[in-house]
Amino acid sequence: MNWHLPSDAPVDETAEVERQARVWRPLAAAARELVDLCVMSDVDEDEVRAAQADVEAAVARLRKVRRTQTLGQEHLTGGRRRPWGNPVIGLRNPIAPPIEVHSDPSGRAEADFHCGPAFEGPPGLVHGGVVSLVLDQVLGHAVGAAGRPGMTGTLTIVYRQGTPLGDLRIEAWVDREDGIKTWAKAHIIGPNGVTAEAEGVFILPRAFRTEGS
Amino acid sequence: MNWHLPSDAPVDETAEVERQARVWRPLAAAARELVDLCVMSDVDEDEVRAAQADVEAAVARLRKVRRTQTLGQEHLTGGRRRPWGNPVIGLRNPIAPPIEVHSDPSGRAEADFHCGPAFEGPPGLVHGGVVSLVLDQVLGHAVGAAGRPGMTGTLTIVYRQGTPLGDLRIEAWVDREDGIKTWAKAHIIGPNGVTAEAEGVFILPRAFRTEGS
Repeated sequence: MNWHLPSDAPVDETAEVERQARVWRPLAAAARELVDLCVMSDVDEDEVRAAQADVEAAVARLRKVRRTQTLGQEHLTGGRRRPWGNPVIGLRNPIAPPIEVHSDPSGRAEADFHCGPAFEGPPGLVHGGVVSLVLDQVLGHAVGAAGRPGMTGTLTIVYRQGTPLGDLRIEAWVDREDGIKTWAKAHIIGPNGVTAEAEGVFILPRAFRTEGS
Repeated sequence: MNWHLPSDAPVDETAEVERQARVWRPLAAAARELVDLCVMSDVDEDEVRAAQADVEAAVARLRKVRRTQTLGQEHLTGGRRRPWGNPVIGLRNPIAPPIEVHSDPSGRAEADFHCGPAFEGPPGLVHGGVVSLVLDQVLGHAVGAAGRPGMTGTLTIVYRQGTPLGDLRIEAWVDREDGIKTWAKAHIIGPNGVTAEAEGVFILPRAFRTEGS
């Protein structure tokens, strides 16, 4: 189950990653249902306590071996990463809806996703901060796909209307580049059109800089 | 367990809210541990599957009765609210760390909180979008405490350095007001100082506007 495969072991890394995905994905999926029901269930007190005991049993099992590093600190061979712990797209993270982002080298990224009641801010609407969380993530995909990855330097969100809970779409694209900075834009689209717009400025890491940039 | 107490019932609402908090808080706390372990456990495949069965048992119990309204659409008497479903501060929401925000009528709000591995973006650091999520929430407390509540119109985050996972502090304050707009600022403080700064523009709802504003 350990992420770090012995480098001299005759293991097919791709097959091992797929095997681990088959193990962890269903657990995270069940945990996402639990998160939803923690805010949406209306069962009586005895049933809540029984459910709590079930969850505590799961916790006791999973706690037997705890990782020494977070998932974000692990790497596959060849510099590849698998962001399974990411709170927006992570296969293993019950906080993540998760969003499946599609991107291409032109610097466009997009995703259709669903925000349920656990993401509610104002009544019936997605929390404004969750809107910014998702926009930040997908902006990052756009600049990464364009070969201009980086940490967010500045993020500006303009809220045009409330974003209703339910099925949503997000689109992001690289707007312009100048030296080590990349500007990307994004918006979220709900049933009544664009609900929020974002611009992010991303700073290219040293490893990606060429002379003169 | 229903939120809507019959208006003619001789029930002490405060006592009933406290009773419900005693029921739901421990379930959400157990679910938060589960979320953490979904990304941090390193047990073997059989143990993961057994934990999954435990979680599915809890889900089956809680699913027996599902609310017809989200928690954000419910109200207590006297216009009070209890944001138990909120993804940052909600007692019932396992996504919420939860953060306990302290605010005062001068328009200051602050909180000490903890961000664990489930909130990771770059290795060892809080996801930039989670930073914006928390900042948006606490900016909202500042303007609300000052009697200038509202929906976020614009949110700008400037990231000064990575925000390390762990214990953090957030402070927000009202900067200025003009008509229906309120500007508030906030920052997050880590072990090495301010990691991110925010400015939010909040639009006063019609119900709070006085003539001429």
